[in-house]
Amino acid sequence: MRSIEITASERKEVARQLSVWGEGNDDDISDITDKLGVLIYEIGELEDQFIDRYDQYRITLKSIRDIEGSVQPSRERKQKITDQIAYLKYKDPQSPKINVLEQELVRAEAESLVAEAQLSNITREKLKVAFNYQFDSMREHAEKIALIAGYGKALLELLDESPVTPGETRAAYDGYESSKQIIIDAENALATWTFDSAVVKPTLSFAAHDEEEYDDEDLAEETENLKITEDQWAAEDKVAA
Amino acid sequence: MRSIEITASERKEVARQLSVWGEGNDDDISDITDKLGVLIYEIGELEDQFIDRYDQYRITLKSIRDIEGSVQPSRERKQKITDQIAYLKYKDPQSPKINVLEQELVRAEAESLVAEAQLSNITREKLKVAFNYQFDSMREHAEKIALIAGYGKALLELLDESPVTPGETRAAYDGYESSKQIIIDAENALATWTFDSAVVKPTLSFAAHDEEEYDDEDLAEETENLKITEDQWAAEDKVAA
Repeated sequence: MRSIEITASERKEVARQLSVWGEGNDDDISDITDKLGVLIYEIGELEDQFIDRYDQYRITLKSIRDIEGSVQPSRERKQKITDQIAYLKYKDPQSPKINVLEQELVRAEAESLVAEAQLSNITREKLKVAFNYQFDSMREHAEKIALIAGYGKALLELLDESPVTPGETRAAYDGYESSKQIIIDAENALATWTFDSAVVKPTLSFAAHDEEEYDDEDLAEETENLKITEDQWAAEDKVAA
Repeated sequence: MRSIEITASERKEVARQLSVWGEGNDDDISDITDKLGVLIYEIGELEDQFIDRYDQYRITLKSIRDIEGSVQPSRERKQKITDQIAYLKYKDPQSPKINVLEQELVRAEAESLVAEAQLSNITREKLKVAFNYQFDSMREHAEKIALIAGYGKALLELLDESPVTPGETRAAYDGYESSKQIIIDAENALATWTFDSAVVKPTLSFAAHDEEEYDDEDLAEETENLKITEDQWAAEDKVAA
């Protein structure tokens, strides 16, 4: 998605502008906007990562369209032979070609059955892999954004906004250590995030559902799956060619 | 952000295409892609909501620029009088105008002190309100997206992707009730989400930090705050005019 790409680069620009604007300001504002800039830039980076993953999901979905396309000729061939037989049976019922065509139809039907089974299997497999991958990317992205937002709010608490009266000097800013620590904490939280540590969980009102199956699966594993099906598909392409 | 707007509308288009594509497919795929379409469309809707909130944040930040702009003339006036006094003291040290200018300078300094205090107060207040509002919007948006992703994964589990052999018929799809329930659960989860139910929390390595202060605050309240400062500012504008 090109538009997410633009969002990501706009985000980074916002981060830069914020830091630049803050620099010319008092110590507290300067420090906090600088750190907010770091967090917002990090969001831009996450968006970039998300785009790459979205592309992989798109490619997988496209491969479903590809196999759909490849099954079509087999369907058409079967239909064509069926039509030819019907035509001959009407025009020249004794023609020896009917028998030849009927044998050809059996072969075409066998090929078509295989093609349809492949389509049925691959469509489901790819759909599932692609969307599991996509939803996992979303979950990771979203939980990381929510984390950053939380650290952002912690940063803001360092900013003392109690009003000063004209001529009164604002108390000296002493949040440098804390703000640095918040950024370190945020970066640690992002770096150590895993699907096992994911906290947003859907509540399902039916019990039959076994969620564990997917919770253990991580994105790396799924990327591996995507690759396997991609390779498989490439191999099948080669056989078909 | 215009680019998020485009992302949202592209997202909805993806949802539509997915449902349309699925319609022509077998029951299981048709039902699941239809429901996936509903969830993805919901993401688009959330993105639209997020844009509106982003706009409000942008407007608040802009108001900081506005007050910065309004303080500038007062700074310049003070500087100009100071320069005039220095010039006269050098050129015509006995000039009675010096005394007049010095009295004018006292008034200008008083005005400037007020303006600087206003700038100091409003900048911090607005910065804090705007970013708290922005981070809360992000948190809400992100947690809701993560929720949707979780329900999406639950939907995918209804899709039986075990391969069939050529000629074999796939077991009839019986997931209609479950898929409908998943959508109902998802919509309930989104509708009942509140900041109190937010689960993604930053881990801060210093204890002095009191997080409660902001956790109780909700977006509605903050929107109220935004409004108050907007009104305040409008009122100040009127006084200035």
